Amino acid sequence: MVQYLRQSSDDFEEKFQNFLQSKREQSQNVDSAVRDIIAHIRAKGDDALIDYTAKFDRILLDKNTLRIDKNILDQAMSEVCEKTFSALKIAHERIVTYHKKQLPKDESFVDPLGVELGWRWNAVESVGLYVPGGTANYPSSVLMNAIPAKVAGVERIVMVVPTPDGHINPLVLAAAKLAGVDEIYRVGGAQAIAALAYGTKTIAPVVKIVGPGNAYVAAAKRQVFGTVGIDMIAGPSEILVVADKNNNPDWIAADLLAQAEHDESAQSILLTDNESFAKDVCQAVDAQLKTLKRAEIAQKSWENFGAVILVDRFDEGIALVNRIAPEHLELAVEDAEAFLAYIRNAGAIFIGSYTPEAIGDYVGGSNHVLPTARSARFSSGLSVLDYMKRSSLLKLNSDQLFKLGPAAIELAQAEGLQAHGRSVSLRLNQSHQDNKVD
Amino acid sequence: MVQYLRQSSDDFEEKFQNFLQSKREQSQNVDSAVRDIIAHIRAKGDDALIDYTAKFDRILLDKNTLRIDKNILDQAMSEVCEKTFSALKIAHERIVTYHKKQLPKDESFVDPLGVELGWRWNAVESVGLYVPGGTANYPSSVLMNAIPAKVAGVERIVMVVPTPDGHINPLVLAAAKLAGVDEIYRVGGAQAIAALAYGTKTIAPVVKIVGPGNAYVAAAKRQVFGTVGIDMIAGPSEILVVADKNNNPDWIAADLLAQAEHDESAQSILLTDNESFAKDVCQAVDAQLKTLKRAEIAQKSWENFGAVILVDRFDEGIALVNRIAPEHLELAVEDAEAFLAYIRNAGAIFIGSYTPEAIGDYVGGSNHVLPTARSARFSSGLSVLDYMKRSSLLKLNSDQLFKLGPAAIELAQAEGLQAHGRSVSLRLNQSHQDNKVD
Repeated sequence: MVQYLRQSSDDFEEKFQNFLQSKREQSQNVDSAVRDIIAHIRAKGDDALIDYTAKFDRILLDKNTLRIDKNILDQAMSEVCEKTFSALKIAHERIVTYHKKQLPKDESFVDPLGVELGWRWNAVESVGLYVPGGTANYPSSVLMNAIPAKVAGVERIVMVVPTPDGHINPLVLAAAKLAGVDEIYRVGGAQAIAALAYGTKTIAPVVKIVGPGNAYVAAAKRQVFGTVGIDMIAGPSEILVVADKNNNPDWIAADLLAQAEHDESAQSILLTDNESFAKDVCQAVDAQLKTLKRAEIAQKSWENFGAVILVDRFDEGIALVNRIAPEHLELAVEDAEAFLAYIRNAGAIFIGSYTPEAIGDYVGGSNHVLPTARSARFSSGLSVLDYMKRSSLLKLNSDQLFKLGPAAIELAQAEGLQAHGRSVSLRLNQSHQDNKVD
Repeated sequence: MVQYLRQSSDDFEEKFQNFLQSKREQSQNVDSAVRDIIAHIRAKGDDALIDYTAKFDRILLDKNTLRIDKNILDQAMSEVCEKTFSALKIAHERIVTYHKKQLPKDESFVDPLGVELGWRWNAVESVGLYVPGGTANYPSSVLMNAIPAKVAGVERIVMVVPTPDGHINPLVLAAAKLAGVDEIYRVGGAQAIAALAYGTKTIAPVVKIVGPGNAYVAAAKRQVFGTVGIDMIAGPSEILVVADKNNNPDWIAADLLAQAEHDESAQSILLTDNESFAKDVCQAVDAQLKTLKRAEIAQKSWENFGAVILVDRFDEGIALVNRIAPEHLELAVEDAEAFLAYIRNAGAIFIGSYTPEAIGDYVGGSNHVLPTARSARFSSGLSVLDYMKRSSLLKLNSDQLFKLGPAAIELAQAEGLQAHGRSVSLRLNQSHQDNKVD
């Protein structure tokens, strides 16, 4: 039985706070194991990488087979069903179009003193993309992580993907080829992250590492952070569906289950103003669970972490949405646009009853790598900006320094930083003398 | 004697790599002490905060004096020298103007199918700004951290600043008032970070915490990350001055020392193509050190971490600049603009001989919170974007879903995510029937 939270109940605030704070994931402490793996990769390079891959993925590689070469890639492409590849191409094109609009503009302006100011954006030079093996081996995630890097102008995109027992997902390779990934290595785990961060003879180091992974991968990313950049550490996925009674309960149930089927720790929340509609949705969830391949996972997620929030009126419910700060938010309500104006914290918003979240997972064009676990309060989904960085620019001539310098000297003095002041005053004295000579 | 690296030497590459990898800071392991402090603040709130402040800052506060009230603020304002306050106002105005240009635009577009796409930016709701006590208690840093938050539209900016032995820097309070900080609490250390992250009775929790601090503060920020957002963890500061022989060696020496006087771990690097000029600069450094108040700090920084890199030709030196990826880069060379085009990795770039870096520290307008320790390869200085987050938007109607849905179903199927596919297909069937009924 899924948890019901009634806003009209006296104990709602307490229950809602508990709900917000409840952990959905046990954090596994693998830090010291990961530290060893990283040290070993740094010391022994490819040899260590090959050893770990033999141990964890049960395949024996050598320096020539660490990299997935063109033949294997061509082979994979030939195995991909044409219909699926067409769908992948539609996704690719739409994601590229959307992300191109994120390219930031350089700025350059002159202030009233004539000082030139501004900034320039540059792509990071190289990116490592981690792709998990096993059930979370998703071609759509390859597109979502690689395309913004490509659009940003990253010259070298390196993918690592473990191939346990030699199993390669052809569709993942096809997605990598489509997205313009430059190098693919069949390694995974903390050892792959270490290789990307520090480099081996075969794998040149990268500047930034992105992509989801298990506890070892997450710990390794945290440990190499600083040596390289990393993206956010993704937690289990969640959706909040805000729906009024005019929706088909089956549709909403399917939306909730689409989140729940990802992972036992995923969370699906329905927020509605109509109790009988809520019951219909819950019934539909139970009915659909019966025919779902991943029923066991979805059921655990729904029963352990799912919730129905009953509000008296939607306008009172808005504040709850912002407190939940969901990764995915569906607004299946009449006049969703009006509702939208009050939403402040959400990774991605799907507007109206004909925009199921799954469209955003694949072919909408927006990114499906989004902030989880309430972090939409302070962070955003993956974008082109995550693969670029900004240098600020400042240019003064002697006249401008003459006008602006004294304030800098004054503040440097107030902060007790004498050399700061001197670096300005020496130039002022000089230009003052120049002025005299003129 | 400062380190010389000659690009023409046979062992240059090896030496340069060592130089790049050399650590300038011992990382102190304070994780478990910090964990205790955070747990204690979460359990005991204000009482724990008051206890820690008595212990570490040697001042006895109560729930009414934790917050710095209007009277103290007014008192501080009256103590600030008028000339200094004018300089602070110049800085404030210029920083505001620069950062307003960083406000991102929302995006909204319609694709050829009629699908509505885009994104919206929102400010984070509240920010905690850590200001260190002691020698790094800089009013300019208050401006640099608070102004972008204010410009972003953050409604609640909370500052914490320890006041050891009751000592308050009036200029820091004046800067906070000028920048629009809403609440100021006289607490510091890991306990202040914990209070900001989890809240106490007196201090409501914030959504994101920014600002520099000692090892305890840095460790606390790492530990509360996830519960709140954090900014980068700043390392010791550095400058790379690229200068040709047409510069006044005194000016360049002052620029190098302005970095070195910050901190024994700071790093000042001169890159030039002229050995005799390099020697003149080094002599000027030694001469200026004699009259510097912070000579001891600056000398240690210069001798332990400073460097002179001699290149045969500047066009061969460019690649070195990008590998160093300095926090601050001065281009004191003829035709600096041409040089600029090749610079990819740098936090802030100061162009021409009349733009000493100290201008950027105070009154240039750009931010002085910048990526250190080579992280300019993958990250940027503090900006308005650090106080905002983006929600992506997607809106389809039934016709558009009818056209786009099949590709999503195909990919969901390929990924084995049946409920994803079903959330689309149920809607397609329905709208198909609707079409029939029509």
